[in-house]
Amino acid sequence: MSLTIKSHFAYPTYLSFTTKPSRFTGYNTKIRPNSIYHFNPLKLTYYQPKKMQAPVQYSPAPVIKSSLIEPDGGALVDLVVPEGERGAKTIEAESLPKVRLTKIDVEWVHVISEGWANPLKGFMREDEYLQSLHFNSLRLKDGSIVNMSLPIVLAIDDETKERIGSSSHVGLAGPDGDLIAILRSIEIYKHNKEERIARTWGTTAPGLPYVEEVIIPAGNCLIGGDLEVLKPVKYNDGLDHYRLSPKQLRKEFDRRNADAVFAFQLRNPVHNGHALLMNDTRRRLLEMGFKNPILLLHPLGGFTKADDVPLDVRMEQHSKVLEDGVLDPETTIVAIFPSPMHYAGPTEVQWHAKARINAGANFYIVGRDPAGMGHPTEKRDLYDPDHGKKVLSMAPGLEKLNILPFRVAAYDMVAKKMAFFDPSRAKDFLFISGTKVTLDFSRIWWCFEASFFCNNLKYCAALHVKLKMLVIESSIVKGTRGTLAPRTLKVPAIKALA
Amino acid sequence: MSLTIKSHFAYPTYLSFTTKPSRFTGYNTKIRPNSIYHFNPLKLTYYQPKKMQAPVQYSPAPVIKSSLIEPDGGALVDLVVPEGERGAKTIEAESLPKVRLTKIDVEWVHVISEGWANPLKGFMREDEYLQSLHFNSLRLKDGSIVNMSLPIVLAIDDETKERIGSSSHVGLAGPDGDLIAILRSIEIYKHNKEERIARTWGTTAPGLPYVEEVIIPAGNCLIGGDLEVLKPVKYNDGLDHYRLSPKQLRKEFDRRNADAVFAFQLRNPVHNGHALLMNDTRRRLLEMGFKNPILLLHPLGGFTKADDVPLDVRMEQHSKVLEDGVLDPETTIVAIFPSPMHYAGPTEVQWHAKARINAGANFYIVGRDPAGMGHPTEKRDLYDPDHGKKVLSMAPGLEKLNILPFRVAAYDMVAKKMAFFDPSRAKDFLFISGTKVTLDFSRIWWCFEASFFCNNLKYCAALHVKLKMLVIESSIVKGTRGTLAPRTLKVPAIKALA
Repeated sequence: MSLTIKSHFAYPTYLSFTTKPSRFTGYNTKIRPNSIYHFNPLKLTYYQPKKMQAPVQYSPAPVIKSSLIEPDGGALVDLVVPEGERGAKTIEAESLPKVRLTKIDVEWVHVISEGWANPLKGFMREDEYLQSLHFNSLRLKDGSIVNMSLPIVLAIDDETKERIGSSSHVGLAGPDGDLIAILRSIEIYKHNKEERIARTWGTTAPGLPYVEEVIIPAGNCLIGGDLEVLKPVKYNDGLDHYRLSPKQLRKEFDRRNADAVFAFQLRNPVHNGHALLMNDTRRRLLEMGFKNPILLLHPLGGFTKADDVPLDVRMEQHSKVLEDGVLDPETTIVAIFPSPMHYAGPTEVQWHAKARINAGANFYIVGRDPAGMGHPTEKRDLYDPDHGKKVLSMAPGLEKLNILPFRVAAYDMVAKKMAFFDPSRAKDFLFISGTKVTLDFSRIWWCFEASFFCNNLKYCAALHVKLKMLVIESSIVKGTRGTLAPRTLKVPAIKALA
Repeated sequence: MSLTIKSHFAYPTYLSFTTKPSRFTGYNTKIRPNSIYHFNPLKLTYYQPKKMQAPVQYSPAPVIKSSLIEPDGGALVDLVVPEGERGAKTIEAESLPKVRLTKIDVEWVHVISEGWANPLKGFMREDEYLQSLHFNSLRLKDGSIVNMSLPIVLAIDDETKERIGSSSHVGLAGPDGDLIAILRSIEIYKHNKEERIARTWGTTAPGLPYVEEVIIPAGNCLIGGDLEVLKPVKYNDGLDHYRLSPKQLRKEFDRRNADAVFAFQLRNPVHNGHALLMNDTRRRLLEMGFKNPILLLHPLGGFTKADDVPLDVRMEQHSKVLEDGVLDPETTIVAIFPSPMHYAGPTEVQWHAKARINAGANFYIVGRDPAGMGHPTEKRDLYDPDHGKKVLSMAPGLEKLNILPFRVAAYDMVAKKMAFFDPSRAKDFLFISGTKVTLDFSRIWWCFEASFFCNNLKYCAALHVKLKMLVIESSIVKGTRGTLAPRTLKVPAIKALA
C-alpha cells in the first residue's frame, strides 16, 4: 500500500479584499481557550460584549444596534404550522392523496420550511424551476431579483401522479410513512432529468453523487406547491441542537450584538489553514471598522457523498477546535446548515451563499473550487477552481452580500506553520486540500511534526482512538466513507499516530 | 416510397395577449398586392404614411414622432473602422500575431460589429462568458442588466495561443487569409467544451449541429477582446442588400414613422399560418392604439443545419410572398439577421429577441418550440415546446420587450383555410410545422387543394420549376439540404405540382 501526499501546486491566484486603517487599534483579538461548544453552543454560551467585560458590576451592556442583512424577499418565511392547528391539519393531510418522500426530500422540506430558501414557500412550480435553471435567480412580483441557483423540486412517478388525479393539495409522508406536510395548490410538470442535470452541473457524465442518489431514481414529473409543515423536522441523531434555523441564528446574532456576520461553509474538518483564514477575516473586519464581527461556522448537514467525512465526526471535530481555542467561542457560532449537497460547483456556491443571507450573514468566505469535486469520468477537476468565486461575485441577487475570496493558505515549510501563500517564494509552500489528502506513510511523521494535520489528528485520536479524521481518497479505502477503518490500522505508521 | 404527413396533434396551449379596444377603428388594413421587395427592399420602397396618401399634393407628411426602443446598454456600437483609418489599421494588423477565423467566426464578427449583441464590443472575455453561461445576462458597470444568453466567443488552439505569446492584440484573418479585424486587449482563457455545451443546450448528446460544426473541432482556449473591424463584412452572394444593420433598420423604421416594430424570426419558408399570424398581430397592434406598426420579417442568415432550407431559396420565397401581397410590403421590411443558428431552444430564443431590440423592435413574436429541434439521439423534441416562450417572458434584460406568444394556427378542415386553433373543436384542425413535413403522396392533392402549402408550392414552382420549397425531413432525401432534388421529381404526383 503506497500512498503519496497529493499536493495542489497549481499556481493559485489570490484576491485580497480592501481594508481600511483600523479605527479600533487597541481592540483585543486574543483567543479564549475555554470550551463551550461541546453540547449546545447556544445554551452554554453566556456572552458579554468584550468592551463591557467587568469594569462596572451590574451595569447593563449598552445596546449596540445590530444591522443584520435583510432576508431575500423581505420577511423570513416560517412554514411550520402553529402548534394549535397541528391536529386539524394532520387530519386534513390524512384525507389527501399522499406523496412518499425520500430522506433527501425531507431535508429539502426542512430547508424550505425554515426560510433558508427565502422567499420560496414550497417546492418550485415550473416558472420558478425554469428561472432557477436558466437564470440562477427568481424575479419577484415587485420586480426585484433574488438568487436561486439550484432547482428545489420534488419528483413523483407516474403512478403517484395518477393517484393525485385532480386534487389541488397533497399530503407529504416521510420515508417511514409518517405525515410531514401538506403541499397546497400543486402544479405537476415534466421532469426532464437530462436537461436539469446538464444545466445544473454543466455535465451529464455518470457518477455525480446527487444525480445518482436522487435524480436518476426519481420520477418523471415534478410537483410544486406551497408547504405547510406539520411539525419541525427533527433527526434525533444527537445533533438537532446544532440545527439552528435562520430565525434562531438571527436572534443569536442580535443577542450578541453582531454588526457583521461572516459565514464559512464547509463539509470537511476544519484544518489549520481554515482557522488562519477565519481568524484573519475577523481581524480584517475589525480593521474595516466593525465592532463585533461574528463567525458563523456552518457545516453542511444534509446529503453528502460516501467518501466525505460523516456529520457526527465533523461536529465532534468542530467542537474540539473551539474547545481548544483555535477559534474563539465568544465570536463564533457553530451550527448545522441542513441542505443536501449537490457538488455543483459555481452553481451550488450561489445557493450556499444565498441561504446564509437568510440566516443574517452579510459576509461570505469563498475558497478554491467551492462545492466542486473531481470530474466523475475524467482525470481533472469538474470545474475550473477559480470559477466558483468569479461566478459568485457576479451572481444576480447577491449584490448585497460581501464576497470574501479565500486568501490561499498553505504550509510554509520555512516558517514551519500555516501562512498565507506568498507567490514570490512559491517553492516554500506546500498546498493541500481538506477534501483530498492521500497519505504517504513514509512522510506522515513529517506531516505530524509539521502540525499540518495537527488539529485533525489530535481531535480524532482523542475522540475515536482511530484516525477517523484522516480524509483520504475513496479509491484507497472504498466503502468506509473515506475514513481509515479499523482494519487499516495495522499499518504501523498510522497506528503510532492514534 | 411511402411517406405520411407528420401532423403535430399534441394539444397546444395558446396564450393571447391583451388588446385594448381600437382607438382607430376606421384604419385601413387592406393589403396591397404590389411587389417591391424582389431586389433591394429599401431602395425600392417609397413609403408615404397611409393617412397622408395624396389628399394635398406636395404637402410634406407631418412628422409622427417615432419612439424606437433603446438599444441594450444605450448607444449602438459600430465597430467598423472609419474609412480614413483603414490603411493604417490594416498595416498594424499585418504586424500582429494572427488568428485564423472559420466562416462561422466571421459571421460572429459581422454580428458583433454591427451592434446586434450590443453592448458587446468584441468576443467575450471570461467574466462575460461566465455571466452568459450561468445567468443568460450581463451586468453592466451602471448596475443595469442586459440579456446575453449565448456565449459569443472565439476559440483558438494551443499552437495559436503559443504564437500569440504575450501580445496584447491580435489580427483576425478570414478563412482565405485576408485580414478582417484587430482584437485588442485580449484575454485568453480555458474553453471547457463539455460545460459550455451542457449549460447552453441542456444536453451533451452527440449530433447537435452547432456543436458538431463549431465547438468539437475548435481549440481548447477562448480569446476575448475588443473588436476593430477593418471593413464591413460582405458575403457577395447576391443577398448583401438584405443584410441591413441595426443602424440601417432603425433609420428605415424612423423613415417610415414606425411607432411599433414587431419582429418575426424564422429560418424556414413563410407558410399561410405565419402569414395569418403576422397580419393578425398588426391588426391587434392597431387595436391597441399604435398608428403605424411595422413588421420586421427577419430570416436568420448565418449557419443553419444541413436539412434546413438554404438562405437564397428562402429569400426568394419571402420576396414572392410580399410580391403577391400575402404580407403588406408597405408595412413590412424583409432583412437578413446575420447570426449563426445554435438550435439551443429556450436559451437561443433569448438571443433572437435581444438582437432585435438592438435593431429597434419592441414586440417579438414567439412560437411553439422556438429555436428547437428533435433530440439528436432520442425520439422526442429536445425542448419542451412551451419552454421557449415561458423562458423568454421571464428572461432578465428583456423586460422592456413585449413578448407576443404565437396563437397557434392550423388548417381548419371545415372552413378549408388556415385559422387560429379552436380547442373546443380540436379534431377539425390539422397541425403541421414548417420545419418537418413529410409528404404522403396519396394526400398531396388534398394538401394542394386545401392550399395548405399553396404559397410555398406556387412560389417555388415559379422560381425553380422544381419543388424546392417542400421542406421535408432529411431522412427522406438525404444530402439534398431537405429539398426535393430533381431526381425525385419522377414521382408523378410531385411532378404534377411543379
